[in-house]
Amino acid sequence: MASSPQPQAPSPEIVFDTLQAYQRSVALRGAIDLDLFTAIAEGNHSLSAIAARIKASEKGTRVLCDYLTTIGFLVKKGAEYSLTPDSAAFLDRRSPAYLGSMANFLMDPRVAGMLENIADVIRHGGALPSEDGALARENPMWVEFARSMAPLMHMPAQSIARIFAGSKPIRVLDISAGHGLFGIAFAKQNPRALVTGLDWANVLEVAKENAAQAGVADRYSTIAGSAFEVDFGSGYDIILVPNFLHHFDAATNETLLRKVHAALAPGGFVVAPEFIPNEDRISPARDAMFSMQMLGTPAGDAYTYSELEKMFRNAGFTRSELRELAPLPQRLVVSYQ
Amino acid sequence: MASSPQPQAPSPEIVFDTLQAYQRSVALRGAIDLDLFTAIAEGNHSLSAIAARIKASEKGTRVLCDYLTTIGFLVKKGAEYSLTPDSAAFLDRRSPAYLGSMANFLMDPRVAGMLENIADVIRHGGALPSEDGALARENPMWVEFARSMAPLMHMPAQSIARIFAGSKPIRVLDISAGHGLFGIAFAKQNPRALVTGLDWANVLEVAKENAAQAGVADRYSTIAGSAFEVDFGSGYDIILVPNFLHHFDAATNETLLRKVHAALAPGGFVVAPEFIPNEDRISPARDAMFSMQMLGTPAGDAYTYSELEKMFRNAGFTRSELRELAPLPQRLVVSYQ
Repeated sequence: MASSPQPQAPSPEIVFDTLQAYQRSVALRGAIDLDLFTAIAEGNHSLSAIAARIKASEKGTRVLCDYLTTIGFLVKKGAEYSLTPDSAAFLDRRSPAYLGSMANFLMDPRVAGMLENIADVIRHGGALPSEDGALARENPMWVEFARSMAPLMHMPAQSIARIFAGSKPIRVLDISAGHGLFGIAFAKQNPRALVTGLDWANVLEVAKENAAQAGVADRYSTIAGSAFEVDFGSGYDIILVPNFLHHFDAATNETLLRKVHAALAPGGFVVAPEFIPNEDRISPARDAMFSMQMLGTPAGDAYTYSELEKMFRNAGFTRSELRELAPLPQRLVVSYQ
Repeated sequence: MASSPQPQAPSPEIVFDTLQAYQRSVALRGAIDLDLFTAIAEGNHSLSAIAARIKASEKGTRVLCDYLTTIGFLVKKGAEYSLTPDSAAFLDRRSPAYLGSMANFLMDPRVAGMLENIADVIRHGGALPSEDGALARENPMWVEFARSMAPLMHMPAQSIARIFAGSKPIRVLDISAGHGLFGIAFAKQNPRALVTGLDWANVLEVAKENAAQAGVADRYSTIAGSAFEVDFGSGYDIILVPNFLHHFDAATNETLLRKVHAALAPGGFVVAPEFIPNEDRISPARDAMFSMQMLGTPAGDAYTYSELEKMFRNAGFTRSELRELAPLPQRLVVSYQ
């Protein structure tokens, strides 16, 4: 006769595992830096072959490969390692969807360091404003962002442009353009779109490179400076505000959005790709967890849709909607003049 | 008619999540430092009550609580937070099984920093020996270890003593005693056991405190110094070598074990609690993953049982066995003179 199942005894496993979770980031960073995944994709499967290809010790290679197998990035059969489908798609440098460069930004000491004094940050409810913080003028961290995170944004940028770019002549303003990919996708999708990217001058160099590479440089202009200070011009059909609002408090965003509202042509609208947790603030996991990253800034947050909708409404927009990009990361707020 | 299921498309989720996994460590560390779990266990469930109790901003508290909910340390119902069974057992400071102090060691910059230059460490197959490394004479990092990790070791120490301490007069040597709990458990279990703890002098202060607290100070003596240099004495019935062998290469361990072998009484044996991955080196996960931590030392490793068995054999031991402590962490090598 089967006994009824015992409730599982508490286990310290999750405490131990979470306090060492930083090692997962470090190990993946090491593998990306050494181009381990490319080495395996090229056909090196034994430790000796992989170690020779990445010019590393066999012991270090063995520890790294076993660790990456344990956390789900490799498959080990006998003494041979191979890539998982995810690793093959995103971590083989020869893959068009290669995302390894993300490590440069996500683990940049300027980004990771935001949460260094975590207890103080939680006590204060954010970081103290600083001269070299994320929002400082021409902070080179955003050049790193523009170069490192572009690969992750290609697909969302294309998806958004396919939905909104249409085929009529339009003028598009891309605020906090970064790599420029969101605006550039509009120019590629619609040959009659004129796109203006706005960001710090140093960051715009990356956007201009990307526009040239996409063959749309002749329809891509720029405005250098702070979105809170520069003149936007006016008459834009679409204004993109990608991943910008999460850096500021609601009042600051409303100030910005009033300026955005005034720069729209009649019938114009805003598209804002964002990390948008559900109203419960604990799902979807990635969007919800993004609020911790933003706690490392003076006033940033991962806003729920109802919070964002209110900011747009207070800034004069008549109607907003939330759109999914699934299975792509992030969601969109679309808000109409 | 249902279509056949599509193979799941590759997702960058695991890359993104792993590169940000360090935030999980940081957030849990912050919660432990602020004693958040104790505050909730005391009956504070709303954000305002929790924030008031931990003397933190409501925004920081909200972000932290939502993040901890998302990664499995809290439960959120409506706007109220409560502990999971694991958090209640191990993270409420009033719990006898409180493990929060582990954060002090596991996230100590001297420990976490071992993997800072990860690509170099992998290339080299370990850290370059350094004057202030983990193995340096009287490194205060081991005092932190002795104080912080003791709570995790109470149960394994008691389990081991119950198996091996018996009731006859015995002499026990505890090499790299640290907190001293493994040896002290023998003294508590067997009133006729005489225990000697060996470690750096600064670390032994912690072991002596613990022996006094356990009421066995009169049967607890110490030998201060390096296990490779000091005289062990002889005639020990049991020699404990807890979590020590993983710091050194096989040849160094064999040198040590020959010295251990010579210090045993006839019929004596060694008990070595260790992280011991299976021969596949990718399971159990915690033991396998421990090799990454050890890669941050000049020559350490998480050895398989067959590797450990060979070291004992080469050092003159006649027979070894692997014993499970499940459900407790770690496994034991027992090796007979």
